[in-house]
Amino acid sequence: MSLKRPMILVTNDDGISAKGIRSLFEAVKEFGDVVVIAPDSAQSGMGHAITINEPLRLYDSDLFGDTPAYACSGTPVDCVKMGVYEILHRKPDLIVSGINHGANTASNVLYSGTMSAAVEGAMENIPSVGFSLCSFDSDADFTASKSVVKNIVKHVLKNGMMDYTCLNVNIPDIPLDELKSIKICRQSLSFWDDRFDKRKDQFGKPYYWLEGEFLEQDKVEGTDLYWIERGHPTLVPTQFDMTAYKAIKELENWNL
Amino acid sequence: MSLKRPMILVTNDDGISAKGIRSLFEAVKEFGDVVVIAPDSAQSGMGHAITINEPLRLYDSDLFGDTPAYACSGTPVDCVKMGVYEILHRKPDLIVSGINHGANTASNVLYSGTMSAAVEGAMENIPSVGFSLCSFDSDADFTASKSVVKNIVKHVLKNGMMDYTCLNVNIPDIPLDELKSIKICRQSLSFWDDRFDKRKDQFGKPYYWLEGEFLEQDKVEGTDLYWIERGHPTLVPTQFDMTAYKAIKELENWNL
Repeated sequence: MSLKRPMILVTNDDGISAKGIRSLFEAVKEFGDVVVIAPDSAQSGMGHAITINEPLRLYDSDLFGDTPAYACSGTPVDCVKMGVYEILHRKPDLIVSGINHGANTASNVLYSGTMSAAVEGAMENIPSVGFSLCSFDSDADFTASKSVVKNIVKHVLKNGMMDYTCLNVNIPDIPLDELKSIKICRQSLSFWDDRFDKRKDQFGKPYYWLEGEFLEQDKVEGTDLYWIERGHPTLVPTQFDMTAYKAIKELENWNL
Repeated sequence: MSLKRPMILVTNDDGISAKGIRSLFEAVKEFGDVVVIAPDSAQSGMGHAITINEPLRLYDSDLFGDTPAYACSGTPVDCVKMGVYEILHRKPDLIVSGINHGANTASNVLYSGTMSAAVEGAMENIPSVGFSLCSFDSDADFTASKSVVKNIVKHVLKNGMMDYTCLNVNIPDIPLDELKSIKICRQSLSFWDDRFDKRKDQFGKPYYWLEGEFLEQDKVEGTDLYWIERGHPTLVPTQFDMTAYKAIKELENWNL
């Protein structure tokens, strides 16, 4: 690390008052000068959404003591954009997002606001890491996660990041002394089997809650789901080039 | 095509009353039995967001004559999930999304509700195509686009789709007789240079509009941006495995 302290932007998708972002802040503050900018309310499942059809609001927050902190009315991706372009007026040296209350393994990377903030960082070519604990408990124990965060942040600040790439880190919900080594792996090809719970409101009109069950159909060695189950934190390098290169040749045979 | 008419789900992100979805409906209706389910309001920029913190509403729509049509209070991805699990109770043979009022080239695939609907279809392994016209005009001329839609839909229904892949089709905003051949290519590595327009409301409190300029920094041969500029519709096969495989080896040297 250079003598100059790194500038670290901290964000999340569970909202600025979540226990997870406080834990993330505590884990990274020793590594640099921190600025927190996070949604003013829960933004889980917002994916890579940006706010373009309504204006954004930004409020000072005193939740992090002397550390500059801001609550934003928008999505996690909005927070990254506002952090870089409106608050810092420069690219930070590192963006960390999380610690999410709940796993962002497999295809959940697409739905995840936590990971979308990191992906937005990658689009700006800023070293960025999304952290998720495999527990949806709002009072989850982040002790072990903080240790994983410190380890990874230390290495990212030392090594930098591959161009236009970010890291998706998931951490099993087990005590620190049971946590095994970090595994570098790929995103499992697993999905949700969705359902809707149809109810009636006080006027007898129907409304729906999205429910479902996650089908862990691709829990083979080399995937995040495989290693999480065996007590290993996982690290999936993540890119935003979604081109399916293997399909190009087949499509050329279509003679469109 | 088999004797049984294909079931085609039509959606978009500009909302059910947009000119683009009407044009898409008109282009595909000859190919099968159509069901329309689209957001009840504009959902541009919603990316892969899903609605999990509030309930969803679904309303019958008579905008498409005798064709079953539904307006949904949620995002484009919600529309696909509701279409499959609550309306059709089966996977359709094809999902088409659009025609978007505006390009979804390059990294815009991540922000785009139009393309996220198609990506959600790919996650269900349903052949899915997102169509976008490179014009943000709400009264844009979709005549040439309809011709491109027909060509591609015909081929998809005949050939099927590569597993867990969808198509991102962008169409230049030029007359049909100037439109050149469809090019199969990759997503350009280009981004937005963001800005925020800071204003004051009637109480003197600040609010922000996200603005910016798209930097076409990777407009080389083989990219969507390159061919669009030369009058070719582009087709980028798109996947949702975001693993940066090339980075795995480098990360293994980090000795985490």
